[in-house]
Amino acid sequence: MSRFLDKKHEALKPYTPGEQPQNVNLIKLNTNENPFPPGPKVIGALSDAESSKLNLYPDPEVGVLIKAASEYYGVPEGMIVAGNGSDELLAFSFMAFSGGGSVYFPDISYGFYRVYAEVFGASARLIALDDNLMINIEDYYNADGMIVIANPNAQTGTAVTRREIERVLKNNENNLVLIDEAYVDFGAESSLRLIDEYDNLLVIQTLSKARNLAGARVGMAFGSEEIIRDINRIKYSFNPYNLNRLSILAGAAAIRDREYFDGCIGKIKDTRKKFVEDMEGLGFSIVPSLANFVLAHHDKISGEEYYRALRSRNILVRHFSDERIKDYVRVTIGREDEMEALISATKELLGKGGIIHEKV
Amino acid sequence: MSRFLDKKHEALKPYTPGEQPQNVNLIKLNTNENPFPPGPKVIGALSDAESSKLNLYPDPEVGVLIKAASEYYGVPEGMIVAGNGSDELLAFSFMAFSGGGSVYFPDISYGFYRVYAEVFGASARLIALDDNLMINIEDYYNADGMIVIANPNAQTGTAVTRREIERVLKNNENNLVLIDEAYVDFGAESSLRLIDEYDNLLVIQTLSKARNLAGARVGMAFGSEEIIRDINRIKYSFNPYNLNRLSILAGAAAIRDREYFDGCIGKIKDTRKKFVEDMEGLGFSIVPSLANFVLAHHDKISGEEYYRALRSRNILVRHFSDERIKDYVRVTIGREDEMEALISATKELLGKGGIIHEKV
Repeated sequence: MSRFLDKKHEALKPYTPGEQPQNVNLIKLNTNENPFPPGPKVIGALSDAESSKLNLYPDPEVGVLIKAASEYYGVPEGMIVAGNGSDELLAFSFMAFSGGGSVYFPDISYGFYRVYAEVFGASARLIALDDNLMINIEDYYNADGMIVIANPNAQTGTAVTRREIERVLKNNENNLVLIDEAYVDFGAESSLRLIDEYDNLLVIQTLSKARNLAGARVGMAFGSEEIIRDINRIKYSFNPYNLNRLSILAGAAAIRDREYFDGCIGKIKDTRKKFVEDMEGLGFSIVPSLANFVLAHHDKISGEEYYRALRSRNILVRHFSDERIKDYVRVTIGREDEMEALISATKELLGKGGIIHEKV
Repeated sequence: MSRFLDKKHEALKPYTPGEQPQNVNLIKLNTNENPFPPGPKVIGALSDAESSKLNLYPDPEVGVLIKAASEYYGVPEGMIVAGNGSDELLAFSFMAFSGGGSVYFPDISYGFYRVYAEVFGASARLIALDDNLMINIEDYYNADGMIVIANPNAQTGTAVTRREIERVLKNNENNLVLIDEAYVDFGAESSLRLIDEYDNLLVIQTLSKARNLAGARVGMAFGSEEIIRDINRIKYSFNPYNLNRLSILAGAAAIRDREYFDGCIGKIKDTRKKFVEDMEGLGFSIVPSLANFVLAHHDKISGEEYYRALRSRNILVRHFSDERIKDYVRVTIGREDEMEALISATKELLGKGGIIHEKV
């Protein structure tokens, strides 16, 4: 580090994103991307005519995208703000609401929460998932600081119900409850409709997963007008033009194309179901997931070993070193043929009489 | 504000970006955009084939863009980092380097510096420009904190030489000196080549102005490997995927197309020269500018009055309420026909026997 770095950042441990190999021919099942390209309406929105306007600043109020989200979700525009990916909205939210206090979240969840707490001077309070890697919702009652729950939870894919979230809200009237719904569209219940009733609720979603736009960087936050104004206060003190012209158009087109969205989601759910059955047939235990990924564990092969063995066969999944999930790998639900390739490779690996320990 | 907002942000005064009217037929000379669209190579890079990959995350290391900048500027890749516009890089830099201390910058400059100092807990120390709105470089010697100089300076367009910047660097061995070169390509001397020699120099540029890409949000920072690592530490603790796939491609193509760049810059410089002559011919005093905008003042019409009168004729320029420049308007150098339209409107306004005071 340079001698100019603020001392308080010296010990900071930044987030490590999943590997993004460039120009490599891999079956990429490691960062929970949607395996299907954006729909034709998105491609159509990104015309040469629009590219030719890139000399002009985008609309800092991101009007077109906010309007599309407002119409789709039936939420007033003043209760929505867009970000350069949901990561930016999480960062703005921690910056606005967490400073100095405590932030509660599951011990196994999106790894960035810990980093945001650290960088904005809050104390991360980890709440252990139960032995089945499930959230025990009562653990989140009566906290003394901000609460962050990914629903479905990151890494595990398990979900809580809207009723459970509502109980957290009721039992934390003076705490902000941030529900990170990055994966909600793959089968879990959204808490979005609770924002009218609970002024302590902030819901963050992303267009990276269910809406096929990880590469465009578009996230959305929903909450009371006051909360959204606070996030805008941070945005306008950090990066007012946070969304570029083309991502605004892509995001709006993706939200409006309900049919393409439904089609992709349907295929991913079907593939998830079949993949889980196939893996269980091979002796894996699978954490029950309502997301576009599953955590998979096999008694006969360690998580890291399995990760490496797949890697050497050009299949990329994700392995986490966290003690509680190090025996697992996390597999994104891709296209059916991709999952079949993984199943074939796994069968080969496991061999006839159990696991073949390879040098990898 | 909500009851959850961190108290330290309560008094925060966010930045007010220039007006960005949507879908309105105006001659827009208010936010220093390049009047020419991005070049054909940029448009070509944003193909449907690339849009179809938007379901995949971008490269968080932004390799293609960093490589293009490295080749163009002859700077090693480890001394470059890209941002979601130069605003994000300024924010990351204030976050990394300013905290708790003092930050020195001109009293008339980019209005965001004050906001960044405030939001990251630094004390803004304003150094007055001289009576001609010029920087007196010796005022920046032997500071006791970070120094930020926009060169050319924002709002005024005046520039200091590389030799003057070098003297600031030499007289501040223990302070980080951030040179914001957003407008440097319109005629000023870049300090980029000094980064090898001075480990206290950070140069920030943008592709928004000279490279026709305000709508794509691409900024670049250059400095020692240690400084760049520090900024990356903040980036990876805030928003690792900060550039979307298409802006990375647009940025790389824009940097590589030197010919288109030279053509646009040449036209803007010629237009600036002619516009200044025309305005001086009408009795305006113009602050000498090496940027793509000029500050203009006329004894017979107030800055605000002139702004409003032009606005009512569908010509949008910028007026600032800061005491020292409130008598001026800031006019972006657009296409020649746009400047001619402004000159005609101004002639009409000024009338024969001096200014006609209109109700506006």
